[in-house]
Amino acid sequence: MKAKSYAVTSPDAPVDLYELERREPGKHDVEIRILYSGICHSDIHTARGDWGEIEYPCVPGHEIMGTVTRVGEGVTDFKPGDTVGVGVIVNSCQDCAACKSDYEQYCENGPTYTYSSKDPIDRTTTQGGYSDLIVTQEKFVVHVPESLDISKAAPLLCAGITMYSPLRHWNAGPGKKVGIIGLGGLGHMGVKYAKAMGAEVYVITSSPQKAEDAKKFGADGVIVSSDKDEMKRHSRFFDLLIDTIPVEHDLYPYLALLNLNSTIVLVGPINPMPGFHGGDLIDGRKAIAGSGIGSMKEVREMLEFSAEHQILPEVETVRMQDINEAWKKMQDGAMSHRFVIDVAASF
Amino acid sequence: MKAKSYAVTSPDAPVDLYELERREPGKHDVEIRILYSGICHSDIHTARGDWGEIEYPCVPGHEIMGTVTRVGEGVTDFKPGDTVGVGVIVNSCQDCAACKSDYEQYCENGPTYTYSSKDPIDRTTTQGGYSDLIVTQEKFVVHVPESLDISKAAPLLCAGITMYSPLRHWNAGPGKKVGIIGLGGLGHMGVKYAKAMGAEVYVITSSPQKAEDAKKFGADGVIVSSDKDEMKRHSRFFDLLIDTIPVEHDLYPYLALLNLNSTIVLVGPINPMPGFHGGDLIDGRKAIAGSGIGSMKEVREMLEFSAEHQILPEVETVRMQDINEAWKKMQDGAMSHRFVIDVAASF
Repeated sequence: MKAKSYAVTSPDAPVDLYELERREPGKHDVEIRILYSGICHSDIHTARGDWGEIEYPCVPGHEIMGTVTRVGEGVTDFKPGDTVGVGVIVNSCQDCAACKSDYEQYCENGPTYTYSSKDPIDRTTTQGGYSDLIVTQEKFVVHVPESLDISKAAPLLCAGITMYSPLRHWNAGPGKKVGIIGLGGLGHMGVKYAKAMGAEVYVITSSPQKAEDAKKFGADGVIVSSDKDEMKRHSRFFDLLIDTIPVEHDLYPYLALLNLNSTIVLVGPINPMPGFHGGDLIDGRKAIAGSGIGSMKEVREMLEFSAEHQILPEVETVRMQDINEAWKKMQDGAMSHRFVIDVAASF
Repeated sequence: MKAKSYAVTSPDAPVDLYELERREPGKHDVEIRILYSGICHSDIHTARGDWGEIEYPCVPGHEIMGTVTRVGEGVTDFKPGDTVGVGVIVNSCQDCAACKSDYEQYCENGPTYTYSSKDPIDRTTTQGGYSDLIVTQEKFVVHVPESLDISKAAPLLCAGITMYSPLRHWNAGPGKKVGIIGLGGLGHMGVKYAKAMGAEVYVITSSPQKAEDAKKFGADGVIVSSDKDEMKRHSRFFDLLIDTIPVEHDLYPYLALLNLNSTIVLVGPINPMPGFHGGDLIDGRKAIAGSGIGSMKEVREMLEFSAEHQILPEVETVRMQDINEAWKKMQDGAMSHRFVIDVAASF
């Protein structure tokens, strides 16, 4: 079927209207009318070729909320009318050790990303959520709890899960001091989740003007990273740091904030990170770890948790026609919220 | 009292005979006649100023085995005639969160190292084990189990504990695949401990000629790091890697060997390590951690474990007069064993 979409047709072309062909739903496919689609930093990086060459046109978007319109004959878990979401991945080999352990995002053969990946089902290049329609494999579709406002929930599927998964894995909770580095689309979700999990939460930011936002989202404190005294006062203070800074940066000032046996988790695939002194890890048995989105199991858990605690991102609704402007604002980096495209209002 | 020692008197001076003044044992001090003193890479780095300026003369040596000759009036745990050891640290503040949690090596106020540190007791610069006598605080002296051959055991106190501690902390044991990167003084101890703990152990080395040694020490396999096919075959193979490479090196090839949720532990304080790609940590939720020697509690546990499993380093005995030559051989890096100074035979 024809889908109305917005695509990028070359590394420096603007995002523009594009008519996309979607496949007929196969046996295990779900066809979804897209209602809302979040805008993620990854959309810009991928479409602009920052993370490697891609095939054009590229329809970005991997934070998708919509309504099921049709399902393949093998699909039992979804029916037309269901409110569902599609996140960052739409398939994986489902056969490797990672997939078999519910870690599809770490599939040994590489997961199929929602856009700019080779689709193992129809061998086309996957196309994402800047579109009014998507057809995709049931295993990677999730039900959205009724009490979640879907006009705001789309970013949970990337920004939300990217923060939820490491906070859970590294046991953010009562008695733990958690620092969220950076207060953008990811960071602000980190504050909300860590707080709801019961941790003592601090934002570490280079922007003093974000302090008020941080407190509003539930932070117990804000540390401005350029304030050396303040940073020093928090030496060995944190049990866990989640680092959302989207550009390369020196880890040393943050390693100094970690308590014994504690970890700083990078959630942005930055290439390259600068070097570091082995001694800064050795003194206190510290670790630099990475964490990538979350598994489908964790996505479902995160949506339930979000509904239970009414955790939603701060959202500014835009239309497809506003994407280029939104991308520009995101690249300027002054935001503590997320853009969501109201798809129905765009066409 | 006068102690016969070997010292370095400037960054490029040879190690040479030096008469050292040791303090009279204080209330909580133990006076030890040094019998054996291991030679560690740190001795060279510190004495040559690689890790920062130091005060000269410097008597290196932090792998000390000897016999108690006198004890202060407050000492109850040691008596003249006891066989004891002194390792890398000889004091710590004993008041900070780290010290109170049995992590003296990570003391927030900085532990007192066995040499080239400011001694909090007499305000002198500490002087190490290239000497026939040492006087030091009882809390940092350990009993040596009778069944351990003290002519070989000295390197357990640095090389041994540096490997034992991370292997224990990261749960090396049955069902775990452990890789030891580098087969020098540290690496060969890592192989022996990991094997005794029940893990499946592999050595990853740049020196194919070390394969035979690795097997002799108990390794189940050897991977030559320059063999790309072999490295690729072990992609995502390891549950734990301990990295003993003593010079800066790219971590990428080793990160690729780590399984999901697994860690590479650096035990050498290398400055700087080169940069890395955040994505290499994110893909598989991997971590780069550091580990420094071990706590006094762990040192005691390690000595018991070593005695029980009769784990001793491969040792070449030398005299004080041979130190300069030994240092040269160590810097050439072709060794899978450790030099130990026979102190009594030297004077």
